[in-house]
Amino acid sequence: MKQLRVYLAGPEVFLPNAREILDAKIELTKTAGFLPVSPGDLGIPETVTRKEKGLAISAIDEKLMRSADMIIANLTPFRGLSADTGTCFELGFMCALERPAFAYTNDARDHYKRIHDHYDGNICTESGSPRTPDNMSVEDFDMVDNLMMHGGIENRGGVVVVGNAAPDQMMTDFTAFKQVLEIAANNLLHS
Amino acid sequence: MKQLRVYLAGPEVFLPNAREILDAKIELTKTAGFLPVSPGDLGIPETVTRKEKGLAISAIDEKLMRSADMIIANLTPFRGLSADTGTCFELGFMCALERPAFAYTNDARDHYKRIHDHYDGNICTESGSPRTPDNMSVEDFDMVDNLMMHGGIENRGGVVVVGNAAPDQMMTDFTAFKQVLEIAANNLLHS
Repeated sequence: MKQLRVYLAGPEVFLPNAREILDAKIELTKTAGFLPVSPGDLGIPETVTRKEKGLAISAIDEKLMRSADMIIANLTPFRGLSADTGTCFELGFMCALERPAFAYTNDARDHYKRIHDHYDGNICTESGSPRTPDNMSVEDFDMVDNLMMHGGIENRGGVVVVGNAAPDQMMTDFTAFKQVLEIAANNLLHS
Repeated sequence: MKQLRVYLAGPEVFLPNAREILDAKIELTKTAGFLPVSPGDLGIPETVTRKEKGLAISAIDEKLMRSADMIIANLTPFRGLSADTGTCFELGFMCALERPAFAYTNDARDHYKRIHDHYDGNICTESGSPRTPDNMSVEDFDMVDNLMMHGGIENRGGVVVVGNAAPDQMMTDFTAFKQVLEIAANNLLHS
């Protein structure tokens, strides 16, 4: 059986113990029967400016994504109400390539509920669509984040696993990640 | 000369006057010599559940993106520190298809500066890389958002225009959008 290469996208790269957490995810991915592909797998060339370094990392991560057969994205909210924007870019990238896409979040609240809580429940529905106090509309589609992410995954037969980690374990709890690995393995390896 | 179809991605779809703003962007896009492709160009089929509606819109927007030759993304921060996550997905989607990508933001501050300001300047650099008080690292690459977005654009020869709109015009100021249209037209239509 050919081993499938899984690109592991998520904001854990920003953790102080990023290497440790990435290594743990890599081990779990192997245990599930996949070959992990992770940011940091390739070295970053020497660059002069910070901008050049950013461009180099972007090119490397795109190369790693193209080398992968599928993606598992960590959509746990990062620095605010929504998923890490780099992870969202990567999920879109892999969806465009029609590679199987899966995701998980460690926040049990959906997109609507997080925005609702952020505005202390001040969501106005008088206009027919729910709106925050600044009059911007709120998506309410039973989805974990913007519909492009959740829709891109489910419309390709992928699954979004919703976990429920403790507040201080949002970036390090592997429960939902293990569940999505098991589902992906059942769907793609053992079917 | 073949007319290029430009997908217009951005969080203005959430505005109370979304239709008006989208129509204004569509007109400016035509004036610049492009054919605009915009969310809302295709009707949404009747669905039973909210989830089904979200999935249908996602599929339609992906279809519109595939029909487009290029993308101009509005990366102005939305509901927090970063760009709209749906816009980031769409930018990744078009980059994977190797279509020319351009972007603009109406916030003059780069990614690092916005996070710096959000934490009232409490960025610790003792570990060698800048970190917020929760010990998460901060990208500092002279880029407007996560490096995947800015890098994906510039590595394909695209340009990110940084505007400086008034706080109450962040979602409606067209100055940077007009500039990026002019640059894209010069690069792709008049070269």
